[in-house]
Amino acid sequence: MNVLTSDDTISAIATAIGEGGIGIVRVSGSKAVAIADKLFIGKTGKRAADILSHQVVYGDIVDPGSGETIDEAILIIMRGPRSYTREDIVEIHCHGGPVPLRRILDLTLTLGARLAEPGEFTKRAFLSGRLDLAQAEAVIDIIRSKTDASLRVAVGNLSGTLSGEIKHLRHDILKMIAQLEAAIDFPEEDIEEAAAADVAELIVKANAEIGKLLSTAQTGRILREGLATVIVGKPNVGKSSLLNALLREKRAIVTDIPGTTRDIIEEYVNIRGIPLKIIDTAGIRETTDVVEKIGVERAKELVNQADLILLLLDASMPLSAEDRAVLELLAGRQAIILVNKSDLPSLLEFEELKKAAGNRLVLKISVTQGDGLAELEQAIADLVYSGHVSQGEAAFVNNVRHADALRHTSQRLEEALATIEAGMPPDCIVVDLRAAWEKLGEITGDTVGEDIIDQIFTQFCIGK
Amino acid sequence: MNVLTSDDTISAIATAIGEGGIGIVRVSGSKAVAIADKLFIGKTGKRAADILSHQVVYGDIVDPGSGETIDEAILIIMRGPRSYTREDIVEIHCHGGPVPLRRILDLTLTLGARLAEPGEFTKRAFLSGRLDLAQAEAVIDIIRSKTDASLRVAVGNLSGTLSGEIKHLRHDILKMIAQLEAAIDFPEEDIEEAAAADVAELIVKANAEIGKLLSTAQTGRILREGLATVIVGKPNVGKSSLLNALLREKRAIVTDIPGTTRDIIEEYVNIRGIPLKIIDTAGIRETTDVVEKIGVERAKELVNQADLILLLLDASMPLSAEDRAVLELLAGRQAIILVNKSDLPSLLEFEELKKAAGNRLVLKISVTQGDGLAELEQAIADLVYSGHVSQGEAAFVNNVRHADALRHTSQRLEEALATIEAGMPPDCIVVDLRAAWEKLGEITGDTVGEDIIDQIFTQFCIGK
Repeated sequence: MNVLTSDDTISAIATAIGEGGIGIVRVSGSKAVAIADKLFIGKTGKRAADILSHQVVYGDIVDPGSGETIDEAILIIMRGPRSYTREDIVEIHCHGGPVPLRRILDLTLTLGARLAEPGEFTKRAFLSGRLDLAQAEAVIDIIRSKTDASLRVAVGNLSGTLSGEIKHLRHDILKMIAQLEAAIDFPEEDIEEAAAADVAELIVKANAEIGKLLSTAQTGRILREGLATVIVGKPNVGKSSLLNALLREKRAIVTDIPGTTRDIIEEYVNIRGIPLKIIDTAGIRETTDVVEKIGVERAKELVNQADLILLLLDASMPLSAEDRAVLELLAGRQAIILVNKSDLPSLLEFEELKKAAGNRLVLKISVTQGDGLAELEQAIADLVYSGHVSQGEAAFVNNVRHADALRHTSQRLEEALATIEAGMPPDCIVVDLRAAWEKLGEITGDTVGEDIIDQIFTQFCIGK
Repeated sequence: MNVLTSDDTISAIATAIGEGGIGIVRVSGSKAVAIADKLFIGKTGKRAADILSHQVVYGDIVDPGSGETIDEAILIIMRGPRSYTREDIVEIHCHGGPVPLRRILDLTLTLGARLAEPGEFTKRAFLSGRLDLAQAEAVIDIIRSKTDASLRVAVGNLSGTLSGEIKHLRHDILKMIAQLEAAIDFPEEDIEEAAAADVAELIVKANAEIGKLLSTAQTGRILREGLATVIVGKPNVGKSSLLNALLREKRAIVTDIPGTTRDIIEEYVNIRGIPLKIIDTAGIRETTDVVEKIGVERAKELVNQADLILLLLDASMPLSAEDRAVLELLAGRQAIILVNKSDLPSLLEFEELKKAAGNRLVLKISVTQGDGLAELEQAIADLVYSGHVSQGEAAFVNNVRHADALRHTSQRLEEALATIEAGMPPDCIVVDLRAAWEKLGEITGDTVGEDIIDQIFTQFCIGK
């Protein structure tokens, strides 16, 4: 694996960009300590080369060219292999402003580092064997986690809960292969048959475990990426009020970040740990006073992007042709029908609505009175978790790449079973099992191409 | 001073908010280590209480209530007085996402810390005597510095260059007071007179030093706050092209921060270390195709907000009545007149313009050809630095509060001189000198009210 590591020393700003008390420039590689030695002078005159590993030392960052002090800083050297990348790492903790951070980063580049690519520190941690690929992917999931529940799944994956299951499954498959290969060495047909029968049982067991993992994939994906949710309904039915009520009480932490939501037409609502990604908030907020058609075409478009549709109807009005048209759009989609203004005299015919709604949940709510919102929450939680509330202990699949690999592995195992049932010789079964074993290895990165690795790490942020 | 420190333990996210590789939660106070002990478990089972000061230890942050692992983290304990606040400080370095940071912050609050107020860590560093007030103010200047030059001045102030001068001046004034008070003990008139004459000389010397410091204040203020610059001129004269040319080549680092400039109608351009704060970029960018009047009223409004006016004229057109009206607005203001499109056949009468421009600099430029921009830069640098290029060695006054205190001190010293010249007795001179001494102490915070201290630190960011 080490053929992929390079001898370059890399450097990047490791903290978020903006205004903060502390900012960190991180340097990793064989030249890291030599670079630190050139730019750091301890308050007691100490040079970086004399600093023990994992010690916090206070001093000045000085441009060796001009002699100018750039900032006061704390220097930490973490000598490999006791570091994130297992290489020598130097962290320079300076004041958290963009100009001092940029100046210090530039200085490390002048002194021989090169700017790190996105995710390159974590890539090195993976290439050095400190993390497997699933754990490396969990790192960015932690940083981008939207709710407590999504954090919990990501931290579980970083700690190796999923990787452990995968390794265990791969080990089991290897044992099956060994058993079959041992049988090949015997000329007696019945030994081969007995081995194949044993293995068939083991395959069924392994596939059941994969099935269990896969059953968490839908919830896992939603916790990681958010549940794309759209609120549809006629003008003045209360879409904007519902959105505001949800955001007021349940706005997810991530949407508090300055600059992250301004240009984006989505916001996150935290429903019992489920990040609801509300689509088209701009559209919802626009035009409450302008007389506007719901626009069935626009509704269709939105509905097609959504994991969950909240259709808002008005209890004080009969079902309109438009409402019916939108109800029809919901065929085959996850939707909850909300009858708003249920505090007003009802003109909506419920029996008729229930018929049109099929087996979908219909909830009476009143956004202005705050009625029915707890029930809505419960309904969403029931839909998403469907029994899979993450306990942080059990393995959880939150990544589409992992789910795909598991599905393919399961297919290979089914094929192996079919091969056994067809009475084919053990070496044919071994071919299927080996394919399953390889597919599983893509999750942990034991068997995966460089292109996939590159693709994964370029989705990271710089400095991680 | 320690009467002002509280026994609270404070906690805050110390890094900028957003997406980063590393984020830090910082806790300071007597309970910091006990809190860390409750939430941290080292990978080798080590607890916080057993960790040596200034050591980097790797482990997990675990909610002691639920047993749930919130994130992997590095823990650093800096025991007082070897810390920023001189109290026990604990830093928790976790993954730099908003959710893990918020979870860990919440945990420290649950375990007995309270949320730090803006600037409270630095306030504690000041109250404990680790930094004086001018140095504490330099901390936020470093974080908010806009260019290399403004960083250099702030770092100089943090290192105590200005504070040193102030202390030196205060010491000199104390010596004068002692000399006068010694003379009071002698009944002979001539001893009093001789002492007063000696002190008069010393006052003149001290006042000259203050004058030298004050001569840097204008440049210092601009380096800290930016040079408010407005580009005015008729439609289609090239305002938008000039702005874009400056931003393309010289955009200051701070304006790269996502979220900082979107809603703001100003951007910074870095001209040889001078942060030009361009006012009304929105106005400049609007409407290049719409036929629009320059709006002399609007020009007047902008001109009044600006430190520097760049008036853009069109070489290919004669001076209009409007141009003349704007030229008149420049009376008493710092302005540079730029004759754009100087690559086109000239219809502008230069002699006439020069007369109207008075002694202002008139530069021929062509934004499309890139001609004259270097000269414009030089002209701005000449205006601002007027000989005061910061060398980072000499003391520099970059803060309006400091400049005011210096001006008042200078007045007190002048008054002391007048008292001497009027032949008043030494104790009257001492009153003036003591007032000067106290005023100077406001800069370093030796003599300053709690209200001013509070006002200064509330301008900080949370976590610093």
